Amino acid sequence: MRRVALVVEYDGGGYAGWQRQAVAPSIQAAIEDAVGRLTQRAARVTGAGRTDAGVHALGQVAHVDIDSTMPAHRICAGLNALLPRDIVIRDAVEVPTAFHARRDARLRVYRYVILARTRPSALLRGHAHYVAGPLDIDAMRAAAGPLIGAHDFAAFRASGTETATTDCVVRALRIDERGAAAVVTVAANRFLRQMVRRLVGTLLLVARGTVPPERPAEILAARDPSRAGPPAPPHALYLVRVYYPASVLMGPAPGGPSEGAVL
Amino acid sequence: MRRVALVVEYDGGGYAGWQRQAVAPSIQAAIEDAVGRLTQRAARVTGAGRTDAGVHALGQVAHVDIDSTMPAHRICAGLNALLPRDIVIRDAVEVPTAFHARRDARLRVYRYVILARTRPSALLRGHAHYVAGPLDIDAMRAAAGPLIGAHDFAAFRASGTETATTDCVVRALRIDERGAAAVVTVAANRFLRQMVRRLVGTLLLVARGTVPPERPAEILAARDPSRAGPPAPPHALYLVRVYYPASVLMGPAPGGPSEGAVL
Repeated sequence: MRRVALVVEYDGGGYAGWQRQAVAPSIQAAIEDAVGRLTQRAARVTGAGRTDAGVHALGQVAHVDIDSTMPAHRICAGLNALLPRDIVIRDAVEVPTAFHARRDARLRVYRYVILARTRPSALLRGHAHYVAGPLDIDAMRAAAGPLIGAHDFAAFRASGTETATTDCVVRALRIDERGAAAVVTVAANRFLRQMVRRLVGTLLLVARGTVPPERPAEILAARDPSRAGPPAPPHALYLVRVYYPASVLMGPAPGGPSEGAVL
Repeated sequence: MRRVALVVEYDGGGYAGWQRQAVAPSIQAAIEDAVGRLTQRAARVTGAGRTDAGVHALGQVAHVDIDSTMPAHRICAGLNALLPRDIVIRDAVEVPTAFHARRDARLRVYRYVILARTRPSALLRGHAHYVAGPLDIDAMRAAAGPLIGAHDFAAFRASGTETATTDCVVRALRIDERGAAAVVTVAANRFLRQMVRRLVGTLLLVARGTVPPERPAEILAARDPSRAGPPAPPHALYLVRVYYPASVLMGPAPGGPSEGAVL
Protein backbone atom coordinates (compact mmCIF):
# COMPACT_ATOMS: atom_id res chain seq x y z
CA MET A 1 0.00 0.00 0.00
CA ARG A 2 1.36 3.44 -0.97
CA ARG A 3 0.38 6.83 0.38
CA VAL A 4 -0.14 9.63 -2.10
CA ALA A 5 -0.52 13.32 -1.24
CA LEU A 6 -2.86 15.33 -3.48
CA VAL A 7 -2.82 19.09 -3.99
CA VAL A 8 -6.41 20.03 -4.77
CA GLU A 9 -8.05 23.13 -6.28
CA TYR A 10 -11.82 23.41 -6.09
CA ASP A 11 -14.72 25.74 -6.59
CA GLY A 12 -16.73 25.11 -3.42
CA GLY A 13 -19.86 26.74 -4.83
CA GLY A 14 -21.57 23.45 -5.61
CA TYR A 15 -20.55 21.57 -2.45
CA ALA A 16 -21.61 21.27 1.17
CA GLY A 17 -17.94 21.59 2.16
CA TRP A 18 -14.89 19.36 2.22
CA GLN A 19 -16.22 16.66 4.51
CA ARG A 20 -18.27 13.68 3.29
CA GLN A 21 -21.93 13.91 4.30
CA ALA A 22 -24.87 11.55 4.14
CA VAL A 23 -26.76 13.26 1.33
CA ALA A 24 -25.14 16.56 0.26
CA PRO A 25 -22.25 16.51 -2.25
CA SER A 26 -18.79 17.07 -0.75
CA ILE A 27 -15.29 17.47 -2.14
CA GLN A 28 -14.02 14.54 -0.06
CA ALA A 29 -16.71 12.19 -1.39
CA ALA A 30 -16.08 13.28 -4.99
CA ILE A 31 -12.36 12.52 -4.68
CA GLU A 32 -12.97 9.25 -2.81
CA ASP A 33 -15.37 8.16 -5.53
CA ALA A 34 -12.84 9.05 -8.24
CA VAL A 35 -10.04 7.15 -6.47
CA GLY A 36 -12.41 4.21 -6.03
CA ARG A 37 -13.24 4.17 -9.74
CA LEU A 38 -9.58 4.54 -10.73
CA THR A 39 -8.24 1.77 -8.47
CA GLN A 40 -11.36 -0.42 -8.17
CA ARG A 41 -11.09 -0.29 -4.36
CA ALA A 42 -12.87 1.85 -1.76
CA ALA A 43 -10.64 4.74 -0.69
CA ARG A 44 -10.52 7.10 2.27
CA VAL A 45 -9.20 10.62 1.61
CA THR A 46 -7.99 12.79 4.53
CA GLY A 47 -7.76 16.55 4.00
CA ALA A 48 -5.56 19.12 5.75
CA GLY A 49 -8.52 21.41 6.40
CA ARG A 50 -12.26 20.78 6.56
CA THR A 51 -13.44 23.74 4.53
CA ASP A 52 -17.04 24.88 5.11
CA ALA A 53 -19.85 24.71 2.58
CA GLY A 54 -19.13 27.13 -0.28
CA VAL A 55 -15.47 27.71 0.62
CA HIS A 56 -12.96 27.32 -2.24
CA ALA A 57 -9.40 26.00 -2.35
CA LEU A 58 -6.39 26.71 -4.51
CA GLY A 59 -4.11 24.31 -2.66
CA GLN A 60 -5.93 22.02 -0.24
CA VAL A 61 -3.75 19.00 0.59
CA ALA A 62 -5.10 15.50 1.17
CA HIS A 63 -3.63 12.04 1.50
CA VAL A 64 -4.99 8.72 0.29
CA ASP A 65 -3.72 5.15 0.43
CA ILE A 66 -3.65 3.47 -2.95
CA ASP A 67 -3.18 -0.22 -3.61
CA SER A 68 -1.81 0.11 -7.13
CA THR A 69 1.54 0.47 -8.82
CA MET A 70 0.29 3.28 -11.04
CA PRO A 71 2.82 6.17 -11.05
CA ALA A 72 1.71 9.31 -9.19
CA HIS A 73 1.48 11.46 -12.34
CA ARG A 74 -0.88 8.90 -13.89
CA ILE A 75 -3.00 8.87 -10.72
CA CYS A 76 -3.21 12.66 -11.06
CA ALA A 77 -4.26 12.54 -14.71
CA GLY A 78 -6.63 9.63 -14.07
CA LEU A 79 -8.40 11.40 -11.19
CA ASN A 80 -8.79 14.59 -13.22
CA ALA A 81 -10.39 12.62 -16.03
CA LEU A 82 -12.94 11.23 -13.56
CA LEU A 83 -13.59 14.31 -11.41
CA PRO A 84 -16.10 17.06 -12.24
CA ARG A 85 -14.49 20.18 -13.68
CA ASP A 86 -14.91 22.17 -10.44
CA ILE A 87 -12.40 19.89 -8.68
CA VAL A 88 -8.85 19.63 -10.06
CA ILE A 89 -5.94 17.59 -8.69
CA ARG A 90 -3.06 19.99 -9.30
CA ASP A 91 -0.43 17.54 -8.21
CA ALA A 92 -0.03 14.02 -6.80
CA VAL A 93 3.17 12.92 -5.08
CA GLU A 94 4.11 9.76 -3.30
CA VAL A 95 4.84 10.38 0.39
CA PRO A 96 6.02 8.19 3.30
CA THR A 97 3.17 6.07 4.70
CA ALA A 98 3.56 7.98 8.00
CA PHE A 99 2.57 11.27 6.32
CA HIS A 100 -0.74 12.69 7.56
CA ALA A 101 -2.24 15.63 5.65
CA ARG A 102 -3.99 17.14 8.69
CA ARG A 103 -1.75 16.24 11.64
CA ASP A 104 1.54 17.04 9.90
CA ALA A 105 0.46 20.41 8.51
CA ARG A 106 2.45 23.21 10.14
CA LEU A 107 0.97 26.27 8.44
CA ARG A 108 -2.29 26.89 6.61
CA VAL A 109 -2.87 29.99 4.50
CA TYR A 110 -6.34 31.34 3.77
CA ARG A 111 -7.35 34.28 1.65
CA TYR A 112 -10.59 36.29 1.80
CA VAL A 113 -11.61 38.61 -1.06
CA ILE A 114 -13.76 41.66 -0.31
CA LEU A 115 -15.02 43.72 -3.24
CA ALA A 116 -15.87 47.29 -2.22
CA ARG A 117 -17.49 49.34 -4.96
CA THR A 118 -20.70 51.11 -5.89
CA ARG A 119 -22.39 48.12 -7.55
CA PRO A 120 -21.90 44.35 -7.15
CA SER A 121 -19.88 42.41 -9.71
CA ALA A 122 -21.60 40.08 -12.17
CA LEU A 123 -18.37 38.20 -12.85
CA LEU A 124 -17.13 37.78 -9.25
CA ARG A 125 -20.57 37.17 -7.73
CA GLY A 126 -19.70 33.66 -6.47
CA HIS A 127 -16.07 34.40 -5.61
CA ALA A 128 -15.84 37.69 -3.71
CA HIS A 129 -17.82 39.30 -0.90
CA TYR A 130 -19.44 42.49 -2.14
CA VAL A 131 -19.82 45.46 0.19
CA ALA A 132 -21.16 48.82 -0.95
CA GLY A 133 -19.03 51.87 -0.46
CA PRO A 134 -15.44 52.37 0.69
CA LEU A 135 -13.48 50.45 3.33
CA ASP A 136 -11.04 52.03 5.76
CA ILE A 137 -8.07 49.77 4.98
CA ASP A 138 -5.74 51.59 7.36
CA ALA A 139 -8.17 50.98 10.22
CA MET A 140 -8.39 47.28 9.24
CA ARG A 141 -4.61 47.03 9.32
CA ALA A 142 -4.41 48.74 12.70
CA ALA A 143 -7.02 46.31 14.05
CA ALA A 144 -5.28 43.27 12.54
CA GLY A 145 -1.85 43.94 14.07
CA PRO A 146 -2.62 42.91 17.70
CA LEU A 147 -4.28 39.67 16.51
CA ILE A 148 -1.01 38.33 15.10
CA GLY A 149 0.85 35.91 17.37
CA ALA A 150 0.01 33.12 19.80
CA HIS A 151 -3.39 33.74 21.37
CA ASP A 152 -6.50 31.98 22.57
CA PHE A 153 -8.86 32.58 19.60
CA ALA A 154 -12.00 31.31 21.40
CA ALA A 155 -13.69 34.63 20.54
CA PHE A 156 -13.50 33.84 16.82
CA ARG A 157 -14.76 30.27 16.78
CA ALA A 158 -18.20 29.14 15.61
CA SER A 159 -20.55 29.29 18.59
CA GLY A 160 -21.45 25.88 19.94
CA THR A 161 -18.27 24.14 18.74
CA GLU A 162 -15.99 22.58 21.35
CA THR A 163 -12.34 21.69 20.81
CA ALA A 164 -9.64 20.56 23.23
CA THR A 165 -7.85 23.87 22.85
CA THR A 166 -8.62 27.20 21.20
CA ASP A 167 -4.99 28.36 21.14
CA CYS A 168 -3.66 29.23 17.69
CA VAL A 169 -0.52 30.88 16.39
CA VAL A 170 -1.41 33.45 13.73
CA ARG A 171 1.82 34.08 11.83
CA ALA A 172 0.44 36.61 9.34
CA LEU A 173 -2.72 38.69 8.98
CA ARG A 174 -2.35 41.04 6.06
CA ILE A 175 -4.70 43.24 4.06
CA ASP A 176 -3.71 44.02 0.45
CA GLU A 177 -5.53 46.38 -1.90
CA ARG A 178 -5.96 45.10 -5.46
CA GLY A 179 -8.04 47.52 -7.47
CA ALA A 180 -11.49 47.66 -5.89
CA ALA A 181 -10.74 44.53 -3.82
CA ALA A 182 -9.30 44.18 -0.33
CA VAL A 183 -7.65 40.78 0.08
CA VAL A 184 -7.20 39.48 3.63
CA THR A 185 -4.49 36.82 3.96
CA VAL A 186 -4.27 34.82 7.20
CA ALA A 187 -1.61 32.23 7.98
CA ALA A 188 -1.74 30.14 11.15
CA ASN A 189 -0.65 26.77 12.49
CA ARG A 190 -4.32 25.82 12.89
CA PHE A 191 -7.76 27.39 12.54
CA LEU A 192 -10.91 26.98 14.62
CA ARG A 193 -14.19 26.44 12.84
CA GLN A 194 -15.28 29.63 10.99
CA MET A 195 -12.25 31.45 12.44
CA VAL A 196 -11.21 33.23 9.23
CA ARG A 197 -14.78 34.22 8.43
CA ARG A 198 -15.29 35.60 11.94
CA LEU A 199 -11.98 37.47 11.90
CA VAL A 200 -12.91 39.01 8.54
CA GLY A 201 -16.46 39.76 9.72
CA THR A 202 -15.02 41.61 12.73
CA LEU A 203 -12.42 43.47 10.64
CA LEU A 204 -15.22 44.53 8.29
CA LEU A 205 -16.99 46.24 11.21
CA VAL A 206 -13.78 48.23 11.68
CA ALA A 207 -13.41 48.90 7.95
CA ARG A 208 -16.87 50.45 7.82
CA GLY A 209 -16.45 52.48 11.00
CA THR A 210 -19.02 50.52 13.01
CA VAL A 211 -16.48 49.75 15.76
CA PRO A 212 -13.09 51.36 16.52
CA PRO A 213 -9.82 49.64 15.47
CA GLU A 214 -9.10 48.68 19.12
CA ARG A 215 -12.24 46.55 19.39
CA PRO A 216 -11.04 43.27 17.73
CA ALA A 217 -8.12 43.02 20.21
CA GLU A 218 -10.59 43.57 23.09
CA ILE A 219 -12.89 40.86 21.71
CA LEU A 220 -9.90 38.50 21.40
CA ALA A 221 -8.88 39.16 25.03
CA ALA A 222 -12.45 38.67 26.28
CA ARG A 223 -12.67 35.23 24.52
CA ASP A 224 -16.37 35.78 24.01
CA PRO A 225 -17.72 34.67 20.58
CA SER A 226 -20.92 36.69 21.10
CA ARG A 227 -18.94 39.95 20.80
CA ALA A 228 -17.26 39.14 17.47
CA GLY A 229 -18.71 40.30 14.15
CA PRO A 230 -20.96 37.97 12.12
CA PRO A 231 -19.02 35.46 10.03
CA ALA A 232 -18.29 36.84 6.56
CA PRO A 233 -19.97 34.70 3.85
CA PRO A 234 -18.10 31.55 2.73
CA HIS A 235 -18.06 32.09 -1.05
CA ALA A 236 -15.19 34.63 -0.82
CA LEU A 237 -12.85 32.40 1.22
CA TYR A 238 -9.99 30.36 -0.29
CA LEU A 239 -7.69 27.79 1.30
CA VAL A 240 -4.56 28.87 -0.55
CA ARG A 241 -1.78 26.63 0.69
CA VAL A 242 -0.72 24.14 3.35
CA TYR A 243 2.87 23.79 4.50
CA TYR A 244 4.66 20.68 5.82
CA PRO A 245 8.14 20.02 7.16
CA ALA A 246 10.39 18.62 4.43
CA SER A 247 11.17 15.62 6.64
CA VAL A 248 7.59 14.29 6.69
CA LEU A 249 7.08 14.86 2.97
CA MET A 250 10.31 13.20 1.93
CA GLY A 251 11.05 10.86 4.83
CA PRO A 252 14.15 11.02 7.06
CA ALA A 253 17.38 12.08 5.38
CA PRO A 254 19.25 9.03 4.09
CA GLY A 255 22.01 7.85 6.45
CA GLY A 256 21.16 10.30 9.24
CA PRO A 257 19.23 9.52 12.40
CA SER A 258 15.49 10.05 12.18
CA GLU A 259 14.71 13.16 14.19
CA GLY A 260 11.00 12.73 13.71
CA ALA A 261 8.58 15.01 11.95
CA VAL A 262 9.36 18.22 13.81
CA LEU A 263 9.89 21.34 11.73
CA MET B 1 -38.43 60.80 -23.91
CA ARG B 2 -34.93 60.66 -22.40
CA ARG B 3 -31.96 58.61 -23.54
CA VAL B 4 -29.94 56.82 -20.88
CA ALA B 5 -26.55 55.16 -21.40
CA LEU B 6 -25.90 52.03 -19.35
CA VAL B 7 -22.49 50.58 -18.45
CA VAL B 8 -23.04 46.83 -18.13
CA GLU B 9 -21.01 44.00 -16.59
CA TYR B 10 -22.09 40.45 -17.32
CA ASP B 11 -21.07 36.85 -17.02
CA GLY B 12 -21.89 35.56 -20.49
CA GLY B 13 -21.74 31.92 -19.42
CA GLY B 14 -25.51 31.53 -19.25
CA TYR B 15 -26.38 33.47 -22.40
CA ALA B 16 -26.46 32.99 -26.16
CA GLY B 17 -24.71 36.35 -26.51
CA TRP B 18 -25.65 40.02 -26.33
CA GLN B 19 -28.24 40.04 -29.09
CA ARG B 20 -31.90 39.16 -28.54
CA GLN B 21 -32.86 35.81 -30.08
CA ALA B 22 -36.09 33.96 -30.61
CA VAL B 23 -35.65 31.31 -27.94
CA ALA B 24 -32.20 31.44 -26.28
CA PRO B 25 -31.60 33.86 -23.39
CA SER B 26 -29.60 36.99 -24.26
CA ILE B 27 -28.19 39.92 -22.32
CA GLN B 28 -30.10 42.40 -24.49
CA ALA B 29 -33.43 40.67 -23.84
CA ALA B 30 -32.76 40.47 -20.08
CA ILE B 31 -32.09 44.22 -19.90
CA GLU B 32 -35.02 45.10 -22.19
CA ASP B 33 -37.31 43.01 -19.99
CA ALA B 34 -35.99 44.72 -16.84
CA VAL B 35 -36.46 48.20 -18.35
CA GLY B 36 -39.96 47.17 -19.43
CA ARG B 37 -40.86 46.03 -15.93
CA LEU B 38 -39.35 49.16 -14.36
CA THR B 39 -41.06 51.68 -16.66
CA GLN B 40 -44.14 49.65 -17.68
CA ARG B 41 -43.33 50.26 -21.35
CA ALA B 42 -41.63 48.08 -23.95
CA ALA B 43 -38.00 49.14 -24.37
CA ARG B 44 -35.33 48.68 -27.03
CA VAL B 45 -31.74 48.50 -25.81
CA THR B 46 -28.84 49.09 -28.26
CA GLY B 47 -25.38 47.82 -27.31
CA ALA B 48 -21.95 49.05 -28.45
CA GLY B 49 -20.82 45.52 -29.29
CA ARG B 50 -22.72 42.33 -30.09
CA THR B 51 -20.72 39.93 -27.96
CA ASP B 52 -20.90 36.24 -28.98
CA ALA B 53 -22.45 33.45 -26.90
CA GLY B 54 -20.43 32.93 -23.74
CA VAL B 55 -18.41 36.15 -24.01
CA HIS B 56 -18.30 38.33 -20.86
CA ALA B 57 -18.28 42.07 -20.35
CA LEU B 58 -16.86 44.36 -17.70
CA GLY B 59 -17.97 47.55 -19.40
CA GLN B 60 -20.35 46.99 -22.30
CA VAL B 61 -22.21 50.22 -23.11
CA ALA B 62 -25.82 50.37 -24.24
CA HIS B 63 -28.42 53.07 -24.70
CA VAL B 64 -32.14 52.94 -24.08
CA ASP B 65 -34.96 55.48 -24.38
CA ILE B 66 -36.99 55.81 -21.22
CA ASP B 67 -40.32 57.58 -20.88
CA SER B 68 -40.06 58.35 -17.18
CA THR B 69 -38.79 61.14 -14.97
CA MET B 70 -36.99 58.69 -12.69
CA PRO B 71 -33.42 59.94 -11.99
CA ALA B 72 -30.66 57.90 -13.65
CA HIS B 73 -29.25 56.55 -10.36
CA ARG B 74 -32.68 55.18 -9.47
CA ILE B 75 -32.99 53.58 -12.92
CA CYS B 76 -29.64 51.91 -12.24
CA ALA B 77 -30.68 50.61 -8.81
CA GLY B 78 -34.12 49.59 -10.09
CA LEU B 79 -32.70 47.60 -13.02
CA ASN B 80 -30.19 45.83 -10.76
CA ALA B 81 -33.02 44.81 -8.45
CA LEU B 82 -34.85 43.23 -11.42
CA LEU B 83 -31.90 41.69 -13.30
CA PRO B 84 -30.41 38.26 -12.59
CA ARG B 85 -27.17 38.43 -10.60
CA ASP B 86 -25.00 37.61 -13.63
CA ILE B 87 -25.92 40.97 -15.21
CA VAL B 88 -25.10 44.19 -13.33
CA ILE B 89 -25.72 47.77 -14.46
CA ARG B 90 -22.56 49.47 -13.17
CA ASP B 91 -23.71 52.95 -14.09
CA ALA B 92 -26.58 54.76 -15.78
CA VAL B 93 -26.17 58.31 -17.10
CA GLU B 94 -28.49 60.58 -19.03
CA VAL B 95 -27.07 61.38 -22.48
CA PRO B 96 -28.19 63.57 -25.40
CA THR B 97 -30.98 61.92 -27.44
CA ALA B 98 -28.58 61.89 -30.43
CA PHE B 99 -26.16 59.55 -28.58
CA HIS B 100 -25.86 56.09 -30.15
CA ALA B 101 -23.98 53.40 -28.20
CA ARG B 102 -22.77 51.54 -31.30
CA ARG B 103 -22.34 54.25 -33.95
CA ASP B 104 -20.68 56.79 -31.65
CA ALA B 105 -18.18 54.38 -30.10
CA ARG B 106 -14.62 55.33 -31.10
CA LEU B 107 -12.62 52.63 -29.35
CA ARG B 108 -13.51 49.20 -27.98
CA VAL B 109 -11.18 47.28 -25.68
CA TYR B 110 -11.31 43.49 -25.35
CA ARG B 111 -9.27 41.23 -23.12
CA TYR B 112 -8.58 37.52 -23.55
CA VAL B 113 -7.27 35.41 -20.65
CA ILE B 114 -5.12 32.35 -21.41
CA LEU B 115 -4.11 30.11 -18.51
CA ALA B 116 -0.97 28.10 -19.27
CA ARG B 117 -0.10 25.56 -16.60
CA THR B 118 0.23 21.85 -16.00
CA ARG B 119 -3.38 21.26 -14.93
CA PRO B 120 -6.60 23.16 -15.65
CA SER B 121 -8.05 25.50 -13.03
CA ALA B 122 -11.19 24.54 -11.09
CA LEU B 123 -11.85 28.15 -10.13
CA LEU B 124 -11.26 29.83 -13.50
CA ARG B 125 -12.83 27.04 -15.58
CA GLY B 126 -15.55 29.30 -17.05
CA HIS B 127 -13.43 32.43 -17.29
CA ALA B 128 -10.04 31.59 -18.78
CA HIS B 129 -8.83 29.46 -21.68
CA TYR B 130 -6.66 26.63 -20.38
CA VAL B 131 -3.73 25.40 -22.43
CA ALA B 132 -1.29 22.78 -21.16
CA GLY B 133 2.36 23.65 -20.99
CA PRO B 134 4.28 26.87 -21.53
CA LEU B 135 3.64 29.68 -24.01
CA ASP B 136 6.35 31.58 -25.88
CA ILE B 137 5.21 35.07 -24.89
CA ASP B 138 8.09 36.79 -26.70
CA ALA B 139 7.09 35.08 -29.95
CA MET B 140 3.46 36.17 -29.39
CA ARG B 141 4.60 39.76 -28.92
CA ALA B 142 6.76 39.63 -32.04
CA ALA B 143 3.79 38.28 -34.01
CA ALA B 144 1.39 40.88 -32.58
CA GLY B 145 3.47 43.94 -33.50
CA PRO B 146 2.81 44.00 -37.28
CA LEU B 147 -0.95 43.56 -36.70
CA ILE B 148 -1.21 46.93 -34.96
CA GLY B 149 -2.42 49.79 -37.15
CA ALA B 150 -4.94 50.34 -39.95
CA HIS B 151 -5.36 47.13 -41.94
CA ASP B 152 -7.91 45.05 -43.76
CA PHE B 153 -8.67 42.35 -41.17
CA ALA B 154 -10.68 40.13 -43.52
CA ALA B 155 -8.39 37.21 -42.60
CA PHE B 156 -9.60 37.33 -39.00
CA ARG B 157 -13.35 37.52 -39.52
CA ALA B 158 -15.80 34.65 -39.03
CA SER B 159 -16.03 32.76 -42.29
CA GLY B 160 -19.29 33.34 -44.10
CA THR B 161 -19.93 36.80 -42.65
CA GLU B 162 -20.16 39.76 -45.00
CA THR B 163 -19.73 43.39 -44.01
CA ALA B 164 -19.42 46.55 -46.11
CA THR B 165 -15.79 46.92 -45.09
CA THR B 166 -13.28 44.78 -43.26
CA ASP B 167 -10.91 47.67 -42.51
CA CYS B 168 -10.16 48.20 -38.82
CA VAL B 169 -7.70 50.33 -36.90
CA VAL B 170 -6.07 48.26 -34.16
CA ARG B 171 -4.62 50.82 -31.74
CA ALA B 172 -3.18 48.33 -29.24
CA LEU B 173 -2.45 44.59 -29.16
CA ARG B 174 -0.60 43.74 -25.99
CA ILE B 175 0.28 40.54 -24.16
CA ASP B 176 0.79 40.80 -20.38
CA GLU B 177 1.93 37.98 -18.12
CA ARG B 178 0.08 37.71 -14.81
CA GLY B 179 1.26 34.67 -12.90
CA ALA B 180 0.36 31.61 -14.96
CA ALA B 181 -1.92 33.70 -17.20
CA ALA B 182 -1.20 35.51 -20.44
CA VAL B 183 -3.66 38.35 -20.95
CA VAL B 184 -4.14 39.63 -24.50
CA THR B 185 -5.57 43.16 -24.69
CA VAL B 186 -6.84 44.44 -28.04
CA ALA B 187 -8.15 47.95 -28.66
CA ALA B 188 -9.63 48.95 -32.01
CA ASN B 189 -12.11 51.37 -33.51
CA ARG B 190 -14.25 48.40 -34.57
CA PHE B 191 -14.11 44.60 -34.59
CA LEU B 192 -15.31 42.08 -37.16
CA ARG B 193 -17.25 39.06 -35.97
CA GLN B 194 -15.00 36.67 -33.97
CA MET B 195 -12.01 38.92 -34.78
CA VAL B 196 -10.50 38.88 -31.27
CA ARG B 197 -10.99 35.13 -30.91
CA ARG B 198 -9.37 34.49 -34.32
CA LEU B 199 -6.47 36.84 -33.58
CA VAL B 200 -5.90 35.06 -30.25
CA GLY B 201 -6.29 31.63 -31.86
CA THR B 202 -3.63 32.56 -34.41
CA LEU B 203 -1.29 34.05 -31.79
CA LEU B 204 -1.67 30.81 -29.79
CA LEU B 205 -0.30 28.84 -32.75
CA VAL B 206 2.77 31.11 -32.52
CA ALA B 207 2.94 30.79 -28.72
CA ARG B 208 3.11 27.01 -28.98
CA GLY B 209 5.62 26.98 -31.81
CA THR B 210 3.19 25.56 -34.38
CA VAL B 211 3.81 28.48 -36.76
CA PRO B 212 6.63 31.06 -36.83
CA PRO B 213 6.05 34.62 -35.49
CA GLU B 214 6.00 36.03 -39.04
CA ARG B 215 2.95 33.95 -40.02
CA PRO B 216 0.11 36.12 -38.56
CA ALA B 217 1.30 39.16 -40.56
CA GLU B 218 1.36 37.00 -43.71
CA ILE B 219 -2.16 35.74 -43.00
CA LEU B 220 -3.30 39.35 -42.47
CA ALA B 221 -1.78 40.41 -45.80
CA ALA B 222 -3.35 37.44 -47.62
CA ARG B 223 -6.85 38.38 -46.30
CA ASP B 224 -7.77 34.71 -46.31
CA PRO B 225 -9.80 33.52 -43.29
CA SER B 226 -9.01 29.88 -44.06
CA ARG B 227 -5.33 30.42 -43.11
CA ALA B 228 -5.99 31.93 -39.66
CA GLY B 229 -5.95 29.82 -36.50
CA PRO B 230 -9.20 28.42 -35.11
CA PRO B 231 -11.15 30.94 -33.00
CA ALA B 232 -10.14 30.71 -29.33
CA PRO B 233 -13.13 29.70 -27.15
CA PRO B 234 -15.52 32.49 -26.10
CA HIS B 235 -15.57 31.95 -22.31
CA ALA B 236 -12.18 33.64 -21.83
CA LEU B 237 -13.07 36.85 -23.72
CA TYR B 238 -14.14 40.09 -22.02
CA LEU B 239 -15.44 43.34 -23.51
CA VAL B 240 -13.59 45.63 -21.10
CA ARG B 241 -14.44 49.17 -22.10
CA VAL B 242 -15.97 51.36 -24.81
CA TYR B 243 -14.80 54.91 -25.43
CA TYR B 244 -16.82 57.86 -26.79
CA PRO B 245 -15.95 61.44 -27.65
CA ALA B 246 -16.85 63.75 -24.78
CA SER B 247 -19.00 65.85 -27.13
CA VAL B 248 -21.50 63.06 -27.88
CA LEU B 249 -21.74 62.01 -24.25
CA MET B 250 -22.26 65.51 -22.91
CA GLY B 251 -23.70 67.35 -25.90
CA PRO B 252 -22.09 70.34 -27.63
CA ALA B 253 -20.11 72.69 -25.40
CA PRO B 254 -22.38 75.51 -24.16
CA GLY B 255 -22.00 78.69 -26.23
CA GLY B 256 -19.54 77.17 -28.72
CA PRO B 257 -20.39 75.99 -32.21
CA SER B 258 -21.28 72.32 -32.53
CA GLU B 259 -18.40 70.63 -34.30
CA GLY B 260 -20.25 67.36 -34.47
CA ALA B 261 -19.39 64.08 -32.88
CA VAL B 262 -15.88 63.70 -34.22
CA LEU B 263 -13.19 62.83 -31.71
